[in-house]
Amino acid sequence: MSPSKSNAFSQKARRAEDPPISWLMRMALQRPQLISLAAGFTDSSSLPSREVSEIFGELAADSRALQRALQYGSAQGDEGLRRWTADRLAAADGLRDPGASAHPDRVVIGNGSQQLLALATDALCDAGDLVLIEDPTYFVYLGILQNLGIEGVPFRDVAEFRSRLAELKRDGQLSRLKLAYLVSYFRNPTGDTATFEEKKEMLAELAKAERDAGHPIYFLEDAAYRDLRFEGGDTQSAVAADPKLERVIYTATYTKPFATGLKVGFGLFPDEILPVILRFKGNEDFGTSHFDQQIVARAASSGRYEKHLEELREVYRRKADAMRKGLERHFPSSAKWNAPLGGLYFWVSLPESADCGVKSEIFQAAIAADVLYVPGELCYAPSPRRRVPTHQMRLSFGSAPIDQIEEGLRRLGAVLRDQLAPAASSTAR
Amino acid sequence: MSPSKSNAFSQKARRAEDPPISWLMRMALQRPQLISLAAGFTDSSSLPSREVSEIFGELAADSRALQRALQYGSAQGDEGLRRWTADRLAAADGLRDPGASAHPDRVVIGNGSQQLLALATDALCDAGDLVLIEDPTYFVYLGILQNLGIEGVPFRDVAEFRSRLAELKRDGQLSRLKLAYLVSYFRNPTGDTATFEEKKEMLAELAKAERDAGHPIYFLEDAAYRDLRFEGGDTQSAVAADPKLERVIYTATYTKPFATGLKVGFGLFPDEILPVILRFKGNEDFGTSHFDQQIVARAASSGRYEKHLEELREVYRRKADAMRKGLERHFPSSAKWNAPLGGLYFWVSLPESADCGVKSEIFQAAIAADVLYVPGELCYAPSPRRRVPTHQMRLSFGSAPIDQIEEGLRRLGAVLRDQLAPAASSTAR
Repeated sequence: MSPSKSNAFSQKARRAEDPPISWLMRMALQRPQLISLAAGFTDSSSLPSREVSEIFGELAADSRALQRALQYGSAQGDEGLRRWTADRLAAADGLRDPGASAHPDRVVIGNGSQQLLALATDALCDAGDLVLIEDPTYFVYLGILQNLGIEGVPFRDVAEFRSRLAELKRDGQLSRLKLAYLVSYFRNPTGDTATFEEKKEMLAELAKAERDAGHPIYFLEDAAYRDLRFEGGDTQSAVAADPKLERVIYTATYTKPFATGLKVGFGLFPDEILPVILRFKGNEDFGTSHFDQQIVARAASSGRYEKHLEELREVYRRKADAMRKGLERHFPSSAKWNAPLGGLYFWVSLPESADCGVKSEIFQAAIAADVLYVPGELCYAPSPRRRVPTHQMRLSFGSAPIDQIEEGLRRLGAVLRDQLAPAASSTAR
Repeated sequence: MSPSKSNAFSQKARRAEDPPISWLMRMALQRPQLISLAAGFTDSSSLPSREVSEIFGELAADSRALQRALQYGSAQGDEGLRRWTADRLAAADGLRDPGASAHPDRVVIGNGSQQLLALATDALCDAGDLVLIEDPTYFVYLGILQNLGIEGVPFRDVAEFRSRLAELKRDGQLSRLKLAYLVSYFRNPTGDTATFEEKKEMLAELAKAERDAGHPIYFLEDAAYRDLRFEGGDTQSAVAADPKLERVIYTATYTKPFATGLKVGFGLFPDEILPVILRFKGNEDFGTSHFDQQIVARAASSGRYEKHLEELREVYRRKADAMRKGLERHFPSSAKWNAPLGGLYFWVSLPESADCGVKSEIFQAAIAADVLYVPGELCYAPSPRRRVPTHQMRLSFGSAPIDQIEEGLRRLGAVLRDQLAPAASSTAR
């Protein structure tokens, strides 16, 4: 009997399963010689050690500021950091009236953006409810849904988004739909970015569906990778399409673009939801590390955040380029991918007949060859609407240094050539 | 209509109410001249600025260590900090075989101990379940229960603990009981400490009740104030009465005894519950700020934590003494209290006929006189078993400096003498 199936536990505990990420991380720890192209960790050598050391110096020289940083803050988060966050978002989205939608009073600082995704979903959904999710999507968000007993309704694009809504309407299920969740920039796992037009269309579809649902349906935009853009221009967020901020929840983080060890993310919440988020957070931790917030706030106000980000973008541009070249050099020609313009991931598709899933020979052979990837199947919600594809993999260029990326792809490419060859030659016969 | 009553929201959101602490904090912010004897904040002047500055220096000089601190850690928490935590707890409890119950693998680092209280309760209880709680108890824990739709069953002492269990058995309600929650050291709000014998008796009562409940009933010991002992000896925790750690969950924090701005607490969990806590935490934030953990771990391993704690105990001993003297000097003789031996609080009882609750004239007059306390009624769960007392107040000596404690008590004493005088004289007539 699984421990969590005991009748001492809550229904939520009985539903909870070990997240795949922890299993992958244990795997990596057990084989120190293993090259991990799996973890969504950031590049260690470009972490802002110098910037944080300088901020240490400022704090150590200002005993009152240091004392304040070591005292409690508020549950909502540091006011200066919330103001900078709101102003920066308004500028990025070209909002004419920044105060209206992107207002500091609507910003909540969280323990990374992850906490805010969890709180928002918990605030809106009961067990048995539905959430529209991309197909594939961020696997930790699938864990949140599973814990809460929520069914993910997968869509691949706006056309499928529309048909899912039509199906739910036809089946009388719209009353169960509370939320649509979108990783909108350099999506985890595929690297895709939704256009502003696509987001507007989805919002319009939700507004129509609300009439039949009988309640608001929110749009949760997870912009965790927005700052990690290394090619091309920015895209407006859904906030720009919702001038009064009535339906859009927007979350992002300072963890990945600055320092992953400082757990500071944020969410922008419509006025109707904000008090619920603050109540939940008040009970769960009454505020994110005030100390970490002060470091991020000083990095922000001094310009160090933006300056470091420029350098970091160049680092990831080079690493993504190394991964693209490694893929071209080592992977069989039947493998396909799109080079991302930001974020941390390549999404590689093998021929549909190939299986590189968790239980596949390819995955086992990769581990034996000391290279790890995220089997793409982990990024798909279980759904009666389609079978889960098992011919894809997520490769991250975030954590491994460039020489390891090259070596990891060499190992993985050899595994693929070896494993895919018989099928290919049998096809050729 | 309250915003959270909208049908867009989850049942949890509809149950959530604004926590009293946020209302008190807003009140304090609106009147900067107000002396707050309400907040459970720590003493600002004794925060470990020097210690943290020294640790900054160490980190800035060791670029690899700083880089590691700025990278992600694990969901369970830093291994060194977990080991130090387990060893220190075993030593404090005089455990002969430290590895057995207080083992680093059973320790989870959280965003303060608050997060672990919330996760443990969420892991065990569904809406409609029961939790035995002290009467009065920590009001944020009451908020957790209310959010989750759990009914608190209040008990004042071991005798009442036993009768509540007997009543639940008689009424066939034991199957709903999942947990007993105890703030065991210098209890928030009353300052009392449970003896080891009392904890053993409660554990024995729960073991008997389990037979009728049909499932394990856990004992959640919240030891948040254990380190803040400034008079007398330590008391063994319930961990010492549960050698295999089968039923005791133990939580405590480094936030209050070291630096409140560093959000680092911990929990020790039985093997059956541990995986559920890690799954929940994996979905909610996949790990507490790795940076804050490194600072606390360095304070711990260098001996700075214990040294600072010795100094801090002396600070609170003096502040508690100042509060005791101020109460003796300024409060009417009809007010009663016990001087605490640790923690941050005095619990003052006025004559039972007096009302110092949230809606009382006394509370309004205190605010008008620019002094704030926590009305004791906020620390009582709603219960059909007794009416909520309104003649008590919680006074904190944590945050206010000694001169403000004295001045705050002078103001509050004047309010009480003024408000209680007519009743007293009418009684005398």
